[in-house]
Parts: sequence; structure tokens; C-alpha cells
Amino acid sequence: MSLQVTTAIHNVRVATMQGDGYGLIDNALVLIDGEHIRWVGAADAAPQYQAGQRIDGQRGCLTPGLIDCHTHLVWAGSRANEFAQRLHGVSYQQIAEQGGGIAATVRATREADAATLLQLGKTRASALMAEGVTTVEIKSGYGLDLENERKQLQVARQIGEQLPINVQTTLLAAHAVPPEFKGNADGYIDEIVNTILPTLSEEGLVDAVDAFCESIGFTPAQTERVFQAAQQRQLPIKLHAEQLSNQGGAALAAKYQGLSADHLEHLDEQGIAAMKQAGTVAVLLPGAFYFLRDTQYPPIQALLAAEVPIALATDANPGSSPLHSLLLMVHMGATIFRMTPEACLRGVTVNAAKALGLNDRGVIAEGMRADLALWDISEPAELAYQYGVNPLQQVWLAGRPR
Amino acid sequence: MSLQVTTAIHNVRVATMQGDGYGLIDNALVLIDGEHIRWVGAADAAPQYQAGQRIDGQRGCLTPGLIDCHTHLVWAGSRANEFAQRLHGVSYQQIAEQGGGIAATVRATREADAATLLQLGKTRASALMAEGVTTVEIKSGYGLDLENERKQLQVARQIGEQLPINVQTTLLAAHAVPPEFKGNADGYIDEIVNTILPTLSEEGLVDAVDAFCESIGFTPAQTERVFQAAQQRQLPIKLHAEQLSNQGGAALAAKYQGLSADHLEHLDEQGIAAMKQAGTVAVLLPGAFYFLRDTQYPPIQALLAAEVPIALATDANPGSSPLHSLLLMVHMGATIFRMTPEACLRGVTVNAAKALGLNDRGVIAEGMRADLALWDISEPAELAYQYGVNPLQQVWLAGRPR
Ligand SMILES: [Zn+2]
Ligand SMILES: [Zn+2]
Repeated sequence: MSLQVTTAIHNVRVATMQGDGYGLIDNALVLIDGEHIRWVGAADAAPQYQAGQRIDGQRGCLTPGLIDCHTHLVWAGSRANEFAQRLHGVSYQQIAEQGGGIAATVRATREADAATLLQLGKTRASALMAEGVTTVEIKSGYGLDLENERKQLQVARQIGEQLPINVQTTLLAAHAVPPEFKGNADGYIDEIVNTILPTLSEEGLVDAVDAFCESIGFTPAQTERVFQAAQQRQLPIKLHAEQLSNQGGAALAAKYQGLSADHLEHLDEQGIAAMKQAGTVAVLLPGAFYFLRDTQYPPIQALLAAEVPIALATDANPGSSPLHSLLLMVHMGATIFRMTPEACLRGVTVNAAKALGLNDRGVIAEGMRADLALWDISEPAELAYQYGVNPLQQVWLAGRPR
Repeated sequence: MSLQVTTAIHNVRVATMQGDGYGLIDNALVLIDGEHIRWVGAADAAPQYQAGQRIDGQRGCLTPGLIDCHTHLVWAGSRANEFAQRLHGVSYQQIAEQGGGIAATVRATREADAATLLQLGKTRASALMAEGVTTVEIKSGYGLDLENERKQLQVARQIGEQLPINVQTTLLAAHAVPPEFKGNADGYIDEIVNTILPTLSEEGLVDAVDAFCESIGFTPAQTERVFQAAQQRQLPIKLHAEQLSNQGGAALAAKYQGLSADHLEHLDEQGIAAMKQAGTVAVLLPGAFYFLRDTQYPPIQALLAAEVPIALATDANPGSSPLHSLLLMVHMGATIFRMTPEACLRGVTVNAAKALGLNDRGVIAEGMRADLALWDISEPAELAYQYGVNPLQQVWLAGRPR
């Protein structure tokens, strides 16, 4: 009896991302039924099937839809002039004294209405979609009070409703201390754990909880209070950790079975061991590394040696990574971080899915969501090697052509 | 009496690129008549005019069309797998011994027919066009014999005929020693100056002449022979100079009133002084700097202090800069080279025009070609600060909407 499916994609090389590398299948066939992958394998081993639609992949490469697992896409205000000032020699401190830096973004994001934020966020999400992104994580963290954190997360949800892209929301209320709590970070943590987190969680706006644990951010003790509040509500946690200094944040995230610890330039062996133990993904952010002209590399070889899964993400944000291109992160992962093209592609597919706690995507396998990207390239390594000519041909989101 | 023009663009901030910085005019009006700019200035100082078409710039920024003044766009073959091999630990030398590196590109480019090369080149040129590029320089240098250098330059010309973009061709026969002349670089220089250069020049295929003067390329003496042959035919010269070592190439280019010296990581004070004297433009290539993980910065502050004009270009090529995004070069000019956003934008407009010897474009002024780009940004600095959301709204090429 013949298999009935909605779509068959043939004449493609499939990077399934199963196993260690690309999990490449030459001259492959992928059968999609409804929202899911029904079968994948070599064409000459295919079952009998009948497909509503047959797509000729023209010997291109088919990969899982890309996943950007760390962004701050929803913000208002421009910091271009601040950037220009810095290049004209004005110091960070002077800019902060002028009310610049993250304070400027918080002010502008609070002042912006939801419609404005939605428009801005959709424009940025569309840029990601044009490069084959099918799932994007979006953090709050520029509202820093109940009302404005809610506004950011609602806008994030709306992006996912209005555009053909999956959105995962992360509450990052513990991103910075808002002006109302100046000098009273503990008071703001009280507000987060007593009000912001429980309220927005009950409203269904929070898929995960994140914090900025850093010498210039929140202490490990403050971070842990946020994690405990998340844990009480069965919300998974993530952490901005060891970007500027080693605070033991990665180990702390691992202690709470964190989905991911992100940045990690100053991660040590102890942190790596803890992440390995807990299955916490290392999310590396080459855009921030590039934009901040960092010289302290995350311990990539040690992470690889310990078999900690590594993801790559844009960290799209106005302060440290005003970059809305996941393919550029793939390129930078290879060029700056010297990761292999396989590792880079795993970083925006299978490992990015893990970093979001999503086990229904990121690989091409039977039963997985049919989130797929077809590229006009003969080798998957092209995605890490050449940049600027976008080879994306077609995307399927849950089985539907986008 | 009222001015009759074809197009009026109003409600824009115009970055004229006149003077030292942006040459910004707020609430400006630009009048285009036919292929040229007829008038530019503040709207409230405008003459009486009648326009065939009125364009509302919606308070965006209008800049000159961008100019990519250094590319090697026409090549065949992929070096993605070679790139992957390197990231898997294979040495440059092993790859060269396998016939990789530039030899692989020369082989593939020689084997490719013109139609294939044209298709590849058009795809790459289209990526540049999508970012507002209106003039692109294209070098030969992967043919390395009469027939194949001709093929590359003919394809370059065809790109300019088939796509709405201006192409300037540069003969770079002295890019590498072809296999037929292995161990006999002087013999190949003979072939260039006696045959390739005169023939292709007579065929109208050569707008400028370039060479690769480097410890691993041609010596200054060999380079000078190429320059002399160019000079005899009144062809302007350019030079790949001081990328890997200081060969005195920039001073040599200046001695021949070179349009530009390009790369320049190892440029010294003497070279800077010679360039200043001769009006030779410094073309910096941040993509190659990034892709090769260079650490030796070109002497940007010294160039600025000496008032040597600085241009930025993609250097798009398969070996050292597989990057087809001029906006990314603007971003890298600011982020990696710490150039101000003004300097970066001058680098892809007015100074890039100078680097090609073109005095009819690169600024917005009366009498100039109406090559214009309209951007959905409120500050020109946005072009250097944010990357990945392409804010291009509209391009005019010689007065025609593209
Ligand atoms: Zn972040
Ligand atoms: Zn070059």
C-alpha cells in the first residue's frame, strides 16, 4: 500500500543534522504529511508514496529551518548616533551620563506603543526569515517593569501570530536595574519574583526565564532568586553568563538544569563540567564578540572536547549586537570562532532547538515538525563560507510553503 | 520661469557627501533632469520647478548610489570545501599541494564558459545592487592568459549591459603566475606587457590596470613593467599593495599617479606621503581583514591625518573575501577599523569614485550623474551601525528608477 503525503521534496542533498555532523543524505527524498516529516532517506530506498505536491530541489541542499535561539528583537529608539559618538572619541561613561546606553533603549521602549514595537519587531523578524529562520527566541528586558515587560512579550507573541515564524518568549526582566530601583537591585529582584514573573507567567507570556549575571548586572545570589521563582512555576531557565567576567553563572544555570548559558567568553572548566552534567547548551554570540571587539574567546575547544552542545545566535540588540543576520553568525562562527561549518550549522539547528528546550525540530527526521529550508548550494559548507548572496530558495513552516 | 525636470525627490535628508563629512541637508529637495542632478538644496531655497514625477522620500536619507571599487566578481568553482578542510585542521600548504587555493579558482574559471560565468557574476552583482550599489569595479585575474582574461573582462562588461549597474573593468592579469609560466614570473610579465594588456586594451575591455605586488606575488620591478605598459596606453593603474608585507608598492603606485593602492595593512609613512602627493586613494578591504583574521591594521589614523582619501570595498573573491555585501564593509569599517560612520560612507561614495577615476559620481551635486539611493533611516549613521535589516527603499541609476 502506498503512503499518502502532502508534499514530496526530491532531488536534494539533505543535511538531516542527525548524528555528529551534517547527517548528509545524497539524492534524498523527504516526505511531509501535514505539519510533520513522514519519511526521509535516500530516494532509492523510498517507500511507495503518493504526494499532493512534488518539489524538485534541483540538487540543492535541504536543512532544518534555522533557529535563532537568542535575540532581543523588540525595542524602540536608535543608538546609531551614540555609536557614531563613540567612534568620534566620546567615552562610554560620557554617553551613560548623557542617559545613553541601555537606559536610552529602556526609555524609548517604554515610551513606544505596542503597534510601533510590533512594526519594528516584524521588520527585524522578517530579515531573519529571509535567511531561512523558522523559529526565533525573543527576550524582554527593555521594559523593566510589569507593564512594559508585558508589552514587550505581548509584541513578541504577536510577531509569531502575524508572521509565519515560531516565536519563543523569554522573560529577561533581570536584564538591568530600572531607574525606579537605582541603587536597590535587591528591591527590583523582589519586584521580579513577587510580581513581574508570576503575573506574566500566569498570562501565558513566558516560555523561559533569563537573567544577566555579571559584575555590571545581577549577582549570582540575585540571579538564583530569579531562578527559584522560575522553578516554582516550572519555567525553564537560561542565563547571560561569563561575558565580561567569570561569575560562576554557567554552573549556577546548570544547577537549575538551565536550557542554556549564553556568551561564555570567561567560562572555566568547572562551568563546562557543570553544563555537560546538566545538558545545558552553550550559546555563543559571535556578533556581540565582533561588535564589542572582544579578544577573550569562549573556550570552544574545551566545550567541544566535553561534548557540550554549542549553539550560535544573533543576540540581536541595539547595544552589543545590532546585527539581524543569522547567516552572518554562521559565517562568523567559522571565521572568528574557527568552528567547522558542520558545527556552525548544528549551532543554528539541532543545538539551537535544544537551547530552547524544543525537541520537535532542528533535525530532519520522521515525526519532526516539517520546518525546512531549501538552499541553492551544492555543499552545506557554502552556508559558512560565502556570505552576501543569499542562497535561500524555499522555506516550509510546519509543512506549509512560506 | 520655472525649471523643467524629470524627477523631484522631496521630504528627504540628503547626504551630499560634499565637504568633509556627510554634507547633510535637512528637509531637502533634489531635482533630476534626465541622467543628471539639476539642483540640490534645502526645500525652502528651491527654485520654481515643474517635475514629471514627484517622489516623497518620507523623511528618509538620500545618498549617492554606493560604489564598490574593488571586486573580483567573475569566477567559477567553489572553495567551500577547502574552507571546511582548513577548519578541520588541514594546512594551507596541504591544500595548495592538492591544487587548491587560487589555482583551483583559475582552473575552474578557465573551464567555465562565458554563459556560466555571466550567470555567477550577475548573481553576485545583484546582491550588491540590492544594497544600493550603482557602480562596481570588476577585476580579471583568474584567467591568466589572453583568452581567459578576455573572457572574464567580456563577462564583466556584459554584467553592466544586462543589469542596471555601471561596471568598471580592471585588468589584473598580474594576479598570480599561471601554471604555464611556473618558475618564470618574468616570462609571464612579458606575456602581459607584450600581448595580454595591449590586445585587451585595444578591444576596449580595460578601464584600468592592477597588479598584485607582494612577497608571494610580483616584485616591485615586475609590477613596474606592468605599470609602464599601462602608461603607454594611457590606462590608469591601481595596485594590491602592502597586504602581507611592505614592498613599497603604494609609493610605486603613486609614482605612476595610481588611482588607488589597496589593502595597505603594512603601509609606512613614506608610502602615505607618496599617496598624498599623487592623490592616490587608499582602498581598505575590511572583509579580507576579517576573513583572514588579520591583526595588522592599516594605518588609518595616519592616512586620515595625511588627508589621504580612504575608500572601502568588498574585495569580493573566493580566496580571501567571499563576501558580497558592501553594507557589511561599511559596518566593518566602523566596527573593526574604528572609522567614523561619515568616513565609512565617504568610503563607498565619493572616495570610491575617486579610486575609480570617476569624477561624475559619488556626490550629490548639480551636474553629477543621478545615481542615488534612498534609505528608510533617519540618520546616515544607521548604515554603519545596524546590519541585516536592509533599509534600501529605492535606487536611481542615471536618473532612472531601478
Ligand atoms: Zn543577549
Ligand atoms: Zn583584491
